[in-house]
Amino acid sequence: MIKKIGAKGDHRVCSVARALDILGDRWTFLILREAFFGIQFYDRFQANLGIATNILSHRLKRLVENGIMDRRRDPVDSRRIKYKLTEKGRDLYDVTLAFMKWGDKWLSDENGPPLTLYHKKCGQRLEPLMSCSNCKAPIDAREVTFEVNPKIGIDKSG
Amino acid sequence: MIKKIGAKGDHRVCSVARALDILGDRWTFLILREAFFGIQFYDRFQANLGIATNILSHRLKRLVENGIMDRRRDPVDSRRIKYKLTEKGRDLYDVTLAFMKWGDKWLSDENGPPLTLYHKKCGQRLEPLMSCSNCKAPIDAREVTFEVNPKIGIDKSG
Repeated sequence: MIKKIGAKGDHRVCSVARALDILGDRWTFLILREAFFGIQFYDRFQANLGIATNILSHRLKRLVENGIMDRRRDPVDSRRIKYKLTEKGRDLYDVTLAFMKWGDKWLSDENGPPLTLYHKKCGQRLEPLMSCSNCKAPIDAREVTFEVNPKIGIDKSG
Repeated sequence: MIKKIGAKGDHRVCSVARALDILGDRWTFLILREAFFGIQFYDRFQANLGIATNILSHRLKRLVENGIMDRRRDPVDSRRIKYKLTEKGRDLYDVTLAFMKWGDKWLSDENGPPLTLYHKKCGQRLEPLMSCSNCKAPIDAREVTFEVNPKIGIDKSG
């Protein structure tokens, strides 16, 4: 049984659509961004984002339900709840970096990019690059073709 | 004059928030995905996505206004309008690939990922990798630090 995921009427089964079903929301991404900045407590998410508590609670709940964040009592103060990125959540760093890189390039004003990232591993300024793991070349959309998984396919009806 | 962009109340000026202001919408991304699949005409976007025409028109208009897509008369049939990604738009391929990679890894079922990508440049299956352009290592969120641009800063009021 192949479960169609994606927007109603979207005939292309694809991981982009599946990911957007979970993440296609501005607030969700801003919460993730805060988590990547090290934020773990509800009140800090709330203060940093100025987000309404009902929206914050809803988005955090969805992130936990989808295995992107883990909800635990803080071992230091058991009255507090800690939200931590899981491995699945940390894997979204690429998406966050890709957004940031694009924004830095295309949306910065004369003051330059808002943040500079550093790579602790090599000590240099971090310039993330999306490349082919085989030939190491940066990826250009026009140099990519695709094949549809025959077990899934494209629904051509309608 | 520093223009604050971002969610209302979001005290962190960052390119992720700026990018989400333009792109933080599921449909916008699905339209971009179609464009990366080579779709250029309104009726094809409409048919492939099953999207309501008012939403499609609105999102295409925004993409054009933001310089992500170009709207031109088709030279072959001047009654038809062609939507083409600009360089700014093509640069969003990294974001799309990052979404796809995450979805392939974390949201695929027993049938495997819906699409297989190939890199024409090297002829191999494309496995996109986000790495540090200096040391070439894949990027782990825990190995990245950041510095706030002093000309922009974080608004700590409120």
